[in-house]
Amino acid sequence: MIKKYTFGNPIETNATVIDISETKGTLEFFERDNNTFILRLAENDIVYGLGQQVRGLNKRGWKYASNNLDNPNHEEDTLSLYGTHNFIIISGDSLFGAFFDYAGIITFDIGYTHRNLLTVTPDDDNLDVYIITGENETDIVRQFRNLTGRSYAAPKWAFGYGQSRWGYKNADDVRAVAESYRNNNIPIDSIYLDIDYMERYKDFTVDNDAFPDFSGLTAEMKKQGIRLVPIIDAGVKIEDGYDVYEEGVKQNYFCKDADGNDFVAAVWPGRVHFPDVLNSDARKWFGEKYDFLIKQGIEGFWNDMNEPAIFYTEKRLESSIEKINELAKTNMGINEYFELKDAVNSLANNPDDYKLFYHNIDGKKVRHDKVHNLFGFNMTRAASEAFDKICPNKRILMFSRSSCAGMHRYGGMWQGDNKSWWSHLLMNIQMTCNLNMVGFLYTGADMGGFGCDTTEDLMLRWLQFSLFTPLMRNHSALGTREQEVYRFDNMESCRKMIEIRYALIPYLYSEYMKAVLNDDMMFRPLGFEFHDKFSRNTEDQLLLGNEIMLAPVYTQNAEGRYVWLPEEMMFVRMRSLNDYETEILPSGHHYISAKLDELVFFIRRNKAIPLCSAARCTDEIDMSTLHLFGYENSSYELYDDDGISKNISRENISTII
Amino acid sequence: MIKKYTFGNPIETNATVIDISETKGTLEFFERDNNTFILRLAENDIVYGLGQQVRGLNKRGWKYASNNLDNPNHEEDTLSLYGTHNFIIISGDSLFGAFFDYAGIITFDIGYTHRNLLTVTPDDDNLDVYIITGENETDIVRQFRNLTGRSYAAPKWAFGYGQSRWGYKNADDVRAVAESYRNNNIPIDSIYLDIDYMERYKDFTVDNDAFPDFSGLTAEMKKQGIRLVPIIDAGVKIEDGYDVYEEGVKQNYFCKDADGNDFVAAVWPGRVHFPDVLNSDARKWFGEKYDFLIKQGIEGFWNDMNEPAIFYTEKRLESSIEKINELAKTNMGINEYFELKDAVNSLANNPDDYKLFYHNIDGKKVRHDKVHNLFGFNMTRAASEAFDKICPNKRILMFSRSSCAGMHRYGGMWQGDNKSWWSHLLMNIQMTCNLNMVGFLYTGADMGGFGCDTTEDLMLRWLQFSLFTPLMRNHSALGTREQEVYRFDNMESCRKMIEIRYALIPYLYSEYMKAVLNDDMMFRPLGFEFHDKFSRNTEDQLLLGNEIMLAPVYTQNAEGRYVWLPEEMMFVRMRSLNDYETEILPSGHHYISAKLDELVFFIRRNKAIPLCSAARCTDEIDMSTLHLFGYENSSYELYDDDGISKNISRENISTII
Repeated sequence: MIKKYTFGNPIETNATVIDISETKGTLEFFERDNNTFILRLAENDIVYGLGQQVRGLNKRGWKYASNNLDNPNHEEDTLSLYGTHNFIIISGDSLFGAFFDYAGIITFDIGYTHRNLLTVTPDDDNLDVYIITGENETDIVRQFRNLTGRSYAAPKWAFGYGQSRWGYKNADDVRAVAESYRNNNIPIDSIYLDIDYMERYKDFTVDNDAFPDFSGLTAEMKKQGIRLVPIIDAGVKIEDGYDVYEEGVKQNYFCKDADGNDFVAAVWPGRVHFPDVLNSDARKWFGEKYDFLIKQGIEGFWNDMNEPAIFYTEKRLESSIEKINELAKTNMGINEYFELKDAVNSLANNPDDYKLFYHNIDGKKVRHDKVHNLFGFNMTRAASEAFDKICPNKRILMFSRSSCAGMHRYGGMWQGDNKSWWSHLLMNIQMTCNLNMVGFLYTGADMGGFGCDTTEDLMLRWLQFSLFTPLMRNHSALGTREQEVYRFDNMESCRKMIEIRYALIPYLYSEYMKAVLNDDMMFRPLGFEFHDKFSRNTEDQLLLGNEIMLAPVYTQNAEGRYVWLPEEMMFVRMRSLNDYETEILPSGHHYISAKLDELVFFIRRNKAIPLCSAARCTDEIDMSTLHLFGYENSSYELYDDDGISKNISRENISTII
Repeated sequence: MIKKYTFGNPIETNATVIDISETKGTLEFFERDNNTFILRLAENDIVYGLGQQVRGLNKRGWKYASNNLDNPNHEEDTLSLYGTHNFIIISGDSLFGAFFDYAGIITFDIGYTHRNLLTVTPDDDNLDVYIITGENETDIVRQFRNLTGRSYAAPKWAFGYGQSRWGYKNADDVRAVAESYRNNNIPIDSIYLDIDYMERYKDFTVDNDAFPDFSGLTAEMKKQGIRLVPIIDAGVKIEDGYDVYEEGVKQNYFCKDADGNDFVAAVWPGRVHFPDVLNSDARKWFGEKYDFLIKQGIEGFWNDMNEPAIFYTEKRLESSIEKINELAKTNMGINEYFELKDAVNSLANNPDDYKLFYHNIDGKKVRHDKVHNLFGFNMTRAASEAFDKICPNKRILMFSRSSCAGMHRYGGMWQGDNKSWWSHLLMNIQMTCNLNMVGFLYTGADMGGFGCDTTEDLMLRWLQFSLFTPLMRNHSALGTREQEVYRFDNMESCRKMIEIRYALIPYLYSEYMKAVLNDDMMFRPLGFEFHDKFSRNTEDQLLLGNEIMLAPVYTQNAEGRYVWLPEEMMFVRMRSLNDYETEILPSGHHYISAKLDELVFFIRRNKAIPLCSAARCTDEIDMSTLHLFGYENSSYELYDDDGISKNISRENISTII
């Protein structure tokens, strides 16, 4: 049961796809104090939700701001990351979901100021609030997802292993990576191209010196079963003669400043304009640009910097430099030194700069900060709507860094610029669940960690979790340790884990597509299925579909971990596809041993999963090798299709025994 | 058994107090490759040690640099913190300790580049290496400690609860804190004064406007059982008319630049000179300055910024500003923007600046970077040696931020500028053990977290660990949430925890003093006592003395945790001194419940600990209320003395039944 309450005159967010008539009268559950929604929490209430935010499954005990931000510091005290997902579920004395459908900045104090108080404060009083009641958490999520529309369906090849690095400078670098994977017999499906493939970081260009025959390279790689996946940034470089820039200026497709001039910010290429993706004509225009790369054989993209990130604006740079020069003339002590640092470190993504430009939302001039959280959403929507026209019956891989509730209809998302930290492996585990709640089924983190130097054991443990997530991508930043798995002493163990991934693809793809079709979560907290107190408080185990429980090892030098089993399950300890043990464990607390090269997971009681033989790439998966693995005499409902066309239907489900 | 190997001509570090004759011939255990010491690790070898470094008890799987650094970012990829403790223990297929006695920068790659390789690389080839073999880990530590000298003994009042904040601006702020603690019946023994008590951040001055009668305030507080503990910084402000500055210049007591001029760096007060604490005359002079505050009733100090931290040097500032102005003229893209940030963010603590100044080590001119890690050590030594003269039979509280092996003879250390992160509570638990290994028995972390906003549940859980550590100080930074415990909704629970602390003081003081007398660790890893595989791999439980095992709760919203019991123990769940349960648990894996307001710990088999009634402050502890808590028919060896004089002796130990 969904009730919609409207306050003021909300700006359309396009988060929802179903019209629900407004409920008049007092909002359920919450009290109000000015703009703020107030909820008293019972001692044992759990608050789920918020999608992409730091901390765990239970969001209680911190404050969060929905304020899309290019923030590489995913730390315990972080307030905002790249996406906005204003959906929460209160589970305890009461049980309901609340969706704050709002395009601007909104804060959630979930037991931070007072442990027993939840407050939600939007920047102004114009928003829709949806209150969702249901039988249980899963039912509430399903209703929310029905309200916000069917999740994006990725092509099957996007379930293969992907290798990325900010640092592949030219075609030969790409070839060397492909060759190393193939020569070492490590399965792979994709190589990602970070910003260096572009000519001077200009969207929809290719650096012809570094990649002299881009179409040829794409074809050459495809022959090996490898797709290239280029990055697209939000800012369009200001450069005379650059077609995208010149068209945008001519057609008034860029965001404007207060005086009506094209707004200037600086990002990767230096000075840029932002395409006004909230304007339907500009969105259509920008989306069609992706065809430049599709024509050269590209079948997938990742949208980056679309919060949108701003390195600096000209005015702020000017005043900062002035400040710096003034300070440097003084005998700077503690206060002045901190001011100096702040003058530089507050240049990027400054909230005040987001008040300096405007969108033309189909005739209506709207200041950016009022709709800030919709930018990434609409950049991805631009691409997705164009794909529908460019290749009407072919699925294109699309995932984005920035997002907002509703964007899950148009693409997936990776979990941003994380670090090679064990704690970020745990965050990945938890965030995967939290993103599933709001419909982002196609997701995964930069495995091994993007920033900082990784270690071979972190990489192997991370592989042991990522081999279950739809997006399985190894990505790292310029200047950090190279982390292609063939570089490590334990490459053999890594290869075995990636082979297990490929054996699991029929199952993962099936669970993913069933979740798409049924508005379900592919990954769920234990507490969504089991309501005992241990399950409700478990923060480091997940349910995958109805068949698997994951209990990943995420601490260094650990040789095992504790696990709570809410019911009997089959414990699997697997070193490779043909080297494993299984054991039926009764419900209760267990310590399970798991050496570094051992993948551990659980098959739920009387369930089984389909496994196939490993393959070099998804195109070569042999479905005739499929067999059930798990409890005897069980069956599995398998979704399968051609993996690329858009004929997605429940008719593709069959029972296998 | 200790063997000493000398390479080249080592600079004297004063880390050791016993002369051991050099062993000629090949170094045991390690191979050498140029400067690098190489050790092959077995699969299950644990590497303990390194004192103040990030990560856990087992240091394997990361790289570390001994390079004392003012680094508030205690993160998984951090290479250096404030202290240098080049002592490691290899425990596994072989068992031995190694101490690299070296004053310069030295790196440890402990299974980072290759998981099975440990390499140690000093900057040059002049150092002593001590190889220590023994019966077990505890024995090896004891030998190392015997080699490096008896640990600093703090006064008993330093075991009371302390409140601190960078932000107490004047005497009334201090009075308000004292009053709030007293009015709320929360025990307290000390209030710390951060930099604002000084006149323009000048060492050994008091801001007479903010603290008009400093001696009066000290006495007023002392009457309430509260000691004031001021901070002392390393840099001496350059200011005409300031006696410390003028004396230092006149006597040549400051570090010099290459041209023989007093070296200029900038820290809290702006431009400063560094006292040359490696010179015995300058050290004596600087130490005597503490008397300025002792004369006003001060009985304890904390030494800060003594890595020494440098905000900037004049030349680097100049070139950075030039660079910034150049860059700002260009169309800065990704590369130039990162250069801009770097120009400011690399100003502080720049390695090249540590090559710009020199020490006069009693006649010998030594470039600072060669002895960098000795600075904090010798600043604290300066104070300690002066205290011996100023008040020969009175213990003064002294702890330092920067340190080096050997400094444990002169003072304790707090664990630096941490953050209000749950992961820093875990780091505190682990680091306490690691610091004990190298003799830093008087230690504790900024409870609740120094940087970032704390939460009431984090504070309460942190209290539940800190109530066992010698230094129990609540400290926070300017601009963060105020975190005096009376500000929280759960103040009552906090008060009860602090009361438990006071009841434990006879035990904690006794265990501390026995560890001082016996070169023992007060806190030990489980694996030091029990050699089963679970104990060896346990990273989040500690032994306290011979009687207690700690298994703190360090995750948010947790209502309990898993615990490994290597043998039968008594489980204690305590809400207050007279509201608790005990239960004998057999050896094995257990899940123990622990609600937010419940302290949990274990009493070891057939052991008991002395508890007294709570008191307002340590001076009011009534030893006649002492009783044993734990297993029946057990006894305890209690150390007790007057808590302040230096008559420390095993004769103060008596058996209580």
